[in-house]
Amino acid sequence: MSSHGIVLFGHGARDPRWAEPFERLAARLRVAGSPAAHVSLAFLELMTPSLGDAVAAQVAAGCTRITVVPVFFGQGGHVRRDLPQLVDACRAAHPGIEIRCATAVGEDDGVLDAVARYCIGQIGGDA
Amino acid sequence: MSSHGIVLFGHGARDPRWAEPFERLAARLRVAGSPAAHVSLAFLELMTPSLGDAVAAQVAAGCTRITVVPVFFGQGGHVRRDLPQLVDACRAAHPGIEIRCATAVGEDDGVLDAVARYCIGQIGGDA
Repeated sequence: MSSHGIVLFGHGARDPRWAEPFERLAARLRVAGSPAAHVSLAFLELMTPSLGDAVAAQVAAGCTRITVVPVFFGQGGHVRRDLPQLVDACRAAHPGIEIRCATAVGEDDGVLDAVARYCIGQIGGDA
Repeated sequence: MSSHGIVLFGHGARDPRWAEPFERLAARLRVAGSPAAHVSLAFLELMTPSLGDAVAAQVAAGCTRITVVPVFFGQGGHVRRDLPQLVDACRAAHPGIEIRCATAVGEDDGVLDAVARYCIGQIGGDA
């Protein structure tokens, strides 16, 4: 059976607290019974590890299938242009490993519904 | 009865398609029966309108209470430092209008749960 890893890919920021929601998200995915054997964070800039380093670590840990999930609301240049190049470089560095790239989380209806509920709660609509 | 507005505040990007999830989110909040009489987008940079322009438009439209929701995953310098200054400037420009600022949507457990479900679905865990 193949070992599946998830890499949560975010922009990165100078403020280390910026990564806290990403760490909480990773913790949710590391629960017992999770289909993801490994869950890592990776950042485009200003924070480490890079996508290449995170993928290399998962391959070294035995992952044979890796899914990169862009934790971005919008699919702008970072997701449409920078990320595919980074993923291609990872594939070239690790032939034989299946590396997939998901669409940005902000494109998902379930995520947008949850954000909408949060907004309504903030104005007292259902809080 | 006061008229309540929501301003969805995002970073902005050069690629106009970046704003699409924000527009879909705004559409969800503009449904009939929504407690928000007005829903606007505003951007920190690279896109318009600015927060100041979006708030001024809601005040001109009759909003007396405005809630700014940062549509960011992480609370880095943009949310912790830049946004409070922008909100303070809006309050100074519109005395008598109640302008609140929510915490970033990525801090919400319901939003993180939805993102986690999306990630699991991407690796076939419950898709």
